[in-house]
Amino acid sequence: MKVYNFSAGPGMLPEEVKLEAQKDFVDYKGSGMSVTEMSHRSKWYDEIHMSALNDLRTLMNIPEDYYILFVQGGASQQFSAVPLNLLVKGKADYVVTGNFSGKAAKEAVKFGDIVVQATSKDKNFTYIPEGVRFRDDIDYVHICQNNTIFGSRYTARTYPVANAPIVADMSSMILSEEVDVTKYGLIYAGAQKNVAPAGLTIVIVRKDLVGHERADCPVMLSYKTQADADSLYNTPPCFTIYMAGLVFKYLLKLGGVKEIQKINEYKAGLLYDFIDNSDFYHNYVNPADRSLMNVPFVCASDELNAKFVKEAAENGLVSIKGHKLVGGMRASIYNAMPVEGVKKLIEFMKKFETENK
Amino acid sequence: MKVYNFSAGPGMLPEEVKLEAQKDFVDYKGSGMSVTEMSHRSKWYDEIHMSALNDLRTLMNIPEDYYILFVQGGASQQFSAVPLNLLVKGKADYVVTGNFSGKAAKEAVKFGDIVVQATSKDKNFTYIPEGVRFRDDIDYVHICQNNTIFGSRYTARTYPVANAPIVADMSSMILSEEVDVTKYGLIYAGAQKNVAPAGLTIVIVRKDLVGHERADCPVMLSYKTQADADSLYNTPPCFTIYMAGLVFKYLLKLGGVKEIQKINEYKAGLLYDFIDNSDFYHNYVNPADRSLMNVPFVCASDELNAKFVKEAAENGLVSIKGHKLVGGMRASIYNAMPVEGVKKLIEFMKKFETENK
Repeated sequence: MKVYNFSAGPGMLPEEVKLEAQKDFVDYKGSGMSVTEMSHRSKWYDEIHMSALNDLRTLMNIPEDYYILFVQGGASQQFSAVPLNLLVKGKADYVVTGNFSGKAAKEAVKFGDIVVQATSKDKNFTYIPEGVRFRDDIDYVHICQNNTIFGSRYTARTYPVANAPIVADMSSMILSEEVDVTKYGLIYAGAQKNVAPAGLTIVIVRKDLVGHERADCPVMLSYKTQADADSLYNTPPCFTIYMAGLVFKYLLKLGGVKEIQKINEYKAGLLYDFIDNSDFYHNYVNPADRSLMNVPFVCASDELNAKFVKEAAENGLVSIKGHKLVGGMRASIYNAMPVEGVKKLIEFMKKFETENK
Repeated sequence: MKVYNFSAGPGMLPEEVKLEAQKDFVDYKGSGMSVTEMSHRSKWYDEIHMSALNDLRTLMNIPEDYYILFVQGGASQQFSAVPLNLLVKGKADYVVTGNFSGKAAKEAVKFGDIVVQATSKDKNFTYIPEGVRFRDDIDYVHICQNNTIFGSRYTARTYPVANAPIVADMSSMILSEEVDVTKYGLIYAGAQKNVAPAGLTIVIVRKDLVGHERADCPVMLSYKTQADADSLYNTPPCFTIYMAGLVFKYLLKLGGVKEIQKINEYKAGLLYDFIDNSDFYHNYVNPADRSLMNVPFVCASDELNAKFVKEAAENGLVSIKGHKLVGGMRASIYNAMPVEGVKKLIEFMKKFETENK
């Protein structure tokens, strides 16, 4: 059975990327080796690594005054690395719009004077706060650009205005829509939703922010360590970076982020329109703040929700259960989810509604 | 051309493991998904994850009072995590027998009172110091069990005697020979040499040593974080753990570590015997301290060494160049290097000697 994977992460990868990786898995382009076992100092891997860095720079239009780092540990590791590297005055402001931005703020408290200047917790994170005021003497403002669990995202309307660099966790939306990198001091993203298998974290950081880490910053959390070594300070997750590189080439061939954004807006539009025109399914996120990537929705009862999740899986629509903090369902429709998958989901939702109304 | 990869890491993986991963790459056992894209909270992945943990416990005979953690960042990240988690009194002693143990000690100085009690630097790390005395009031002693660059290893003769837990970096020898885990407080190893593709680090830690981390220990470096979550605190490197799991099953089928140790001793024996009976090639490590995994050797001149490396590669014996700190050649003959590969190398060495004597 053809399966569509609505998991919030790791997420689907493009079919042609998987097929190419499979074809070259045992013998990469006549090298006689698998990418899983070649030296990270070999000419074979060097080409993979440098192409991936360059292609990401092209895709996101990242200026030369930003480093791109390939690191490990996920966004959770960046929750520590950001304050360890960026706190110079010792102060930062956070906006808490969901689970992970809350965790980021909690972790940062270990390292400095951290103030949560706004949160949407009062309405179970169904919106993004507007017009937030920040302190004047801070090192940075931290936001989570897209809230995977609650299905909301920042847009131009809510983008924070501050007298300090903006740091954004883009784990669940990187490469899904155009972003003006120059508006950020630092962007980080776990790769496992939109880019690659789990085990790679992308950091994009303005060069002037690097090199001011605390004296006791663990070596692998120092941006300078990785920047000075082109992310080859120690053995990087070579195969995962290779897969990321294949995805970058796939996106370039497709026409870049601009093109995938159009497809993503179309996919999300189909699903939100269907939900909004139904009185059987509900999405409670403020329409202007809705995520393009993660679409939570509920039926009228926990029993119906459980039945939906079970029957959806039986129909090849898997990992659609909502996070326990929200309940119900969540369709994560990352870049690699084909339009066809969203249409199949809507078809199933119609059928389920008819059978259970 | 059949290629034998003598890289110091990432290293070769067993042929049958690669073929199985390739076969299941796009559709894992009828799930309709690749392991590279399935949710780490899915039943599919849960089985992969828990089997890998259990199989490693069986292979290394790890008692129940030890946690096994699957983390990220390589041994270099453990250079920080060990002192952050284990320093309670604030003091630790290190033995420096090569490049990585030196880096480990240097990093630990950020976090406590660290003394290097012995080093073999005086003879360019060609031996392991014996009978080292340690302080009585320390939290741990740190050693590197096998020195990848210099080709030496700890044995029963040199194993440290101390009034504190022993912490060992086993990156380049884990699962290559039997180890009595109960003699250690903590074992860590980057997986990319003997276990899996790069991007996974294994930590084996006695339970009573966990939970005493510094208040400002980054969340992802805390052993307690990962121990409490079965290494699923955030998204783990799922595909890399899957590959590790395949290697564990392969080793179990082979008869366990005991059996692979015999093969490793045979392979290393062939190569050392050949070198010792030659006056064209030299290995300068104290014979009793020689590594089973990494065999450095040199010819009489830098020119000959460079020629050897070049011609070896042309003959399918790749990544055999020695580390710049030692020069010459280094044959890394990890678990997955077949006996055939070592024999081909010796054949080539004979031929090269005849042509260049």
